[in-house]
Amino acid sequence: MDSKKPTIAILGGTGKEGPGLALRWANEGYPIIIGSRQSEKAENVAKELNEQLGIDTIQGMENGEAARRADLCVLTVVQTAHKEALTGLVDDLKGKILVDATARVDFRDPKPPPSPSAARHAQNLLGDDVRVVAAFQNVPAHSLKKNLGQAIDTVVLVCSDDVEAAEEVIELANAGGMRAYYAGGLDNAVVVEGLTSLLISMNKYYGTKTASIGITGIDKN
Amino acid sequence: MDSKKPTIAILGGTGKEGPGLALRWANEGYPIIIGSRQSEKAENVAKELNEQLGIDTIQGMENGEAARRADLCVLTVVQTAHKEALTGLVDDLKGKILVDATARVDFRDPKPPPSPSAARHAQNLLGDDVRVVAAFQNVPAHSLKKNLGQAIDTVVLVCSDDVEAAEEVIELANAGGMRAYYAGGLDNAVVVEGLTSLLISMNKYYGTKTASIGITGIDKN
Repeated sequence: MDSKKPTIAILGGTGKEGPGLALRWANEGYPIIIGSRQSEKAENVAKELNEQLGIDTIQGMENGEAARRADLCVLTVVQTAHKEALTGLVDDLKGKILVDATARVDFRDPKPPPSPSAARHAQNLLGDDVRVVAAFQNVPAHSLKKNLGQAIDTVVLVCSDDVEAAEEVIELANAGGMRAYYAGGLDNAVVVEGLTSLLISMNKYYGTKTASIGITGIDKN
Repeated sequence: MDSKKPTIAILGGTGKEGPGLALRWANEGYPIIIGSRQSEKAENVAKELNEQLGIDTIQGMENGEAARRADLCVLTVVQTAHKEALTGLVDDLKGKILVDATARVDFRDPKPPPSPSAARHAQNLLGDDVRVVAAFQNVPAHSLKKNLGQAIDTVVLVCSDDVEAAEEVIELANAGGMRAYYAGGLDNAVVVEGLTSLLISMNKYYGTKTASIGITGIDKN
């Protein structure tokens, strides 16, 4: 394990988005823990991902233990499990960065969610001891799993009231092959959630599956 | 005047955004009318734009008359004038397409606006005889005014419950050098409005003025 790289727990990491992020970061040498409500489920996904990469460093365990052992946690539960998952993790997340990837959207009837953002709800619930960052809400899961080590043609808009925490997440996104920009405070994240509805509408209208957000006009070097 | 091209009225067209759009479309041969609450103000802006392009076809007149003479109207009033402007134009807009470019944002304290979108408010106020399309909320005014005839590196997300009307607006955006995509119904436009807050945040953080939205993963040919 590279001591310079933070240990990342992917909480609710057995769904669509979590394994894709785990693969990308593990492939770049980040220590990864898959978290799930059921440790056995997490262990199984960890095993699959290890096999796919030919490594044995990805661990699987129950969400709370995963959070405690990590420096930074990424929450990738389905929106209906958002509040319950966070409520059960308040103590485990103290002192950590929590990256909330939740986009509240009904895929059958996509429409913009109401303010405040899911990430703001998370910050309110977790209190000041947790630095919440909203990111990765719109990254297509299938893009993450393909062509590891290569860039993905999408942009991650990173919102947080804590700019330093946001910069850590931008660095992580970059390491995973994504371009990322700081896009303001946690309240702005409701817009990023709502973009999911627009991307679904665009994919449906243009017969694609890969519509993604881009940003032009910023030269970050 | 090219009989195939629709006559476009830019209502509240004496501000920042309106003249830029007028220049781009007039430069492509579209008949343009600048509308304002005060006809003299509209006439003055029309005169300036004609001089800039070396033409004499851009007209200026009071908003209501401009709307009645046009096939398609683009509303570019400041957000505080949105409701009042529309209330006064209900009869004049009957049978037309109204393109609503309103983004409700306080530049000193940018945050995402509440649902429903400004364009949904417009549709509710104008009734079924007007086909409302939301577009051009995020196009930087200074980009419109520079390098006429050349493409602008921004994307226009076009939202409407009327897909045919949206396609007409997409064609107009393309004619003005902008890439444009249909992004769903009028309710989705609240997200496009909210993007303004994110772009302001990004410009502030990265010290730029040109942050714009892009879209990847759709090949429209």
